[in-house]
Amino acid sequence: MPKRKSTITLITDFGLQDGYVGVMKGVMVNINPSVSIIDISNTISAQDIFQAACVLNHSYNYFPKGTIHVVVVDPGVGSDRKILCLKTEDYLFLAPDNGVLSFIIAKEESPSIREITNDKFFLSKLSNTFHGRDIFAPVAAQLSKGVNYKELGDRIDKINEISLPKPILSPTGKLTAEIIYVDSFGNLITNVNKEVIDMMKIGEERVSITMGRRRINGICSSYTDVGDNEALAIFGSSGYLEISVNRGSAGDILKLKKGDKLVLGN
Amino acid sequence: MPKRKSTITLITDFGLQDGYVGVMKGVMVNINPSVSIIDISNTISAQDIFQAACVLNHSYNYFPKGTIHVVVVDPGVGSDRKILCLKTEDYLFLAPDNGVLSFIIAKEESPSIREITNDKFFLSKLSNTFHGRDIFAPVAAQLSKGVNYKELGDRIDKINEISLPKPILSPTGKLTAEIIYVDSFGNLITNVNKEVIDMMKIGEERVSITMGRRRINGICSSYTDVGDNEALAIFGSSGYLEISVNRGSAGDILKLKKGDKLVLGN
Amino acid sequence: MPKRKSTITLITDFGLQDGYVGVMKGVMVNINPSVSIIDISNTISAQDIFQAACVLNHSYNYFPKGTIHVVVVDPGVGSDRKILCLKTEDYLFLAPDNGVLSFIIAKEESPSIREITNDKFFLSKLSNTFHGRDIFAPVAAQLSKGVNYKELGDRIDKINEISLPKPILSPTGKLTAEIIYVDSFGNLITNVNKEVIDMMKIGEERVSITMGRRRINGICSSYTDVGDNEALAIFGSSGYLEISVNRGSAGDILKLKKGDKLVLGN
Repeated sequence: MPKRKSTITLITDFGLQDGYVGVMKGVMVNINPSVSIIDISNTISAQDIFQAACVLNHSYNYFPKGTIHVVVVDPGVGSDRKILCLKTEDYLFLAPDNGVLSFIIAKEESPSIREITNDKFFLSKLSNTFHGRDIFAPVAAQLSKGVNYKELGDRIDKINEISLPKPILSPTGKLTAEIIYVDSFGNLITNVNKEVIDMMKIGEERVSITMGRRRINGICSSYTDVGDNEALAIFGSSGYLEISVNRGSAGDILKLKKGDKLVLGN
Repeated sequence: MPKRKSTITLITDFGLQDGYVGVMKGVMVNINPSVSIIDISNTISAQDIFQAACVLNHSYNYFPKGTIHVVVVDPGVGSDRKILCLKTEDYLFLAPDNGVLSFIIAKEESPSIREITNDKFFLSKLSNTFHGRDIFAPVAAQLSKGVNYKELGDRIDKINEISLPKPILSPTGKLTAEIIYVDSFGNLITNVNKEVIDMMKIGEERVSITMGRRRINGICSSYTDVGDNEALAIFGSSGYLEISVNRGSAGDILKLKKGDKLVLGN
Repeated sequence: MPKRKSTITLITDFGLQDGYVGVMKGVMVNINPSVSIIDISNTISAQDIFQAACVLNHSYNYFPKGTIHVVVVDPGVGSDRKILCLKTEDYLFLAPDNGVLSFIIAKEESPSIREITNDKFFLSKLSNTFHGRDIFAPVAAQLSKGVNYKELGDRIDKINEISLPKPILSPTGKLTAEIIYVDSFGNLITNVNKEVIDMMKIGEERVSITMGRRRINGICSSYTDVGDNEALAIFGSSGYLEISVNRGSAGDILKLKKGDKLVLGN
């Protein structure tokens, strides 16, 4: 019986012009001609590990069980940084040990982690600058063909993590949140989800959000709850509070960016 | 007997960085692992319905019969705007009811239209900001598996349309045309096709095209009919008259843009 | 017995917004629904034949034997320039006769070349501006279905080539190299490979590289051999010497670009 077609996803900072992603796909289909490869994003800002971690976090669990998620944002390529294979109940993740899997670690129960060292799965000629081609692609393709992840190398328990900025609740009941991601529409995604808002017991329709001199009252349920080019707060598709502008870019219009703070209160 | 592999195409303004398109594909292959998904464009300018309509118009009929064309340029997401499934003889189209299907309506004989309301085909947890993921992707995947479009919701007859600027013929025989699309090469695509030029009875080689102070005489059959960096008029690949520059960008060199007018005469 | 799934790759300057690449894929899957199409790059700078040649050169031999590589960077479209099918031992290449296959010609033993003229493989309605859609796509799809390349047209022996700038060795033993490609990370890829450095008999660790007033001593084996934002020389993934900056863009920081010269000595 033919088994379900395997899926490999890609998150890289390789860009689209130079052919690096195409080469990775060539290596993969050469090993497993029937694999299905889906780009999540190949235009992560160069070496921006946190951005890649955010994109992975909002994407990975919409893919079929058994999907192999490959993340190559790897400023330490060629150094002694480890390459990881992390297994959760539903997915395999391949990534450098630089913190890019931090959100996965935080959310998934007791993942099993291997350091990828078994070079029988690598390309025979190994570069020091393009492990996406020489290690990640062939290893992912082998896994998609049924190689057991335990063959990749020894188990390890401790990996590098990056810290997600957490919202801070002051004694007076004010919550200081932070913009952690700005998407291509200019939506400002914060680190506050619905559970945190609920804990504040103010009510979604009454909470006030202050950004510098600007203030938004209440959380909307649709962009069109306000007029064109007006700002609003809304729970975005990933479940986090976002500041948006109806038919416009909140980033451009409000002149806010990643790292800027918001204060929520009543 | 295995049926022909289904194809789904995508036209969105989601951009390439944030992973939104990858998530839609994840949802689709999760429902139908053997579907073939082809990107037409995911870099439509944010919320530019007219641009999406043009790209769809020049693309859709090069795909296999039975292709499902999905257009998610949807500034009204989360409002009470409808989501449509339009069926023509050869294709299915999924799109918000915002005019993005206007060219299809104008060209195709008596399409059958449904409002998509049957939430048994949606993701179970519905956001108000990302219907591409929660409605369009799963519905398209279900259609690709053989679900009948009539199951999606009730038939409707009237949908929103945007008006295509039409060329205007003056009593003196001059034709005022308009640039409706500028492509990435800087080609200026007008709203005048060969039939209209023929109707003017001037002859392709003798028609003059005036843009401000600039004038082009005659319509060429190849970019290389003029010297490098020289402007020409030519019928483009979609059958419409285009103003181009041989080995250069007409948009940059002539400083013309979408909406600018041209006058054709003898 | 089902034969191995065919792969077609694409290198074009069509960009991602206008749907031109999607249309080519539509034409291809219409002819061969089971073909696998992989984008190498569709964002080659408009009409930059040399850039396309470099991207092809660094990519093509990572794909499965039998892959059909299609290159449509074609400023002469619609003129009397020829369209070529070049066959090497492992691959087929479709490209306009404008020099874009020069690196392939230089590296591959006695390729067989045909001029593509047999219009029974073309779309029936031929434009003068989009042969990617009307000729390249349908011909590639037919080849992927098993059509013999000899059916495409007559054999030809002489094709246009572009000259690759070669490093120049002075009588005093200095080698003048050139930056031939700047990738999206800002890595400056030169025309000097390891064999040439070895021939200089200076030793990789002792060779000095001078760019204007700036000097780098020795060739590193990893980006992380130097501190953050420091420049280094390293053999890149294609085997050529590259000037890079650890966690930064050498192009931006060193203010060097394609065509700039470097002098190597001891």
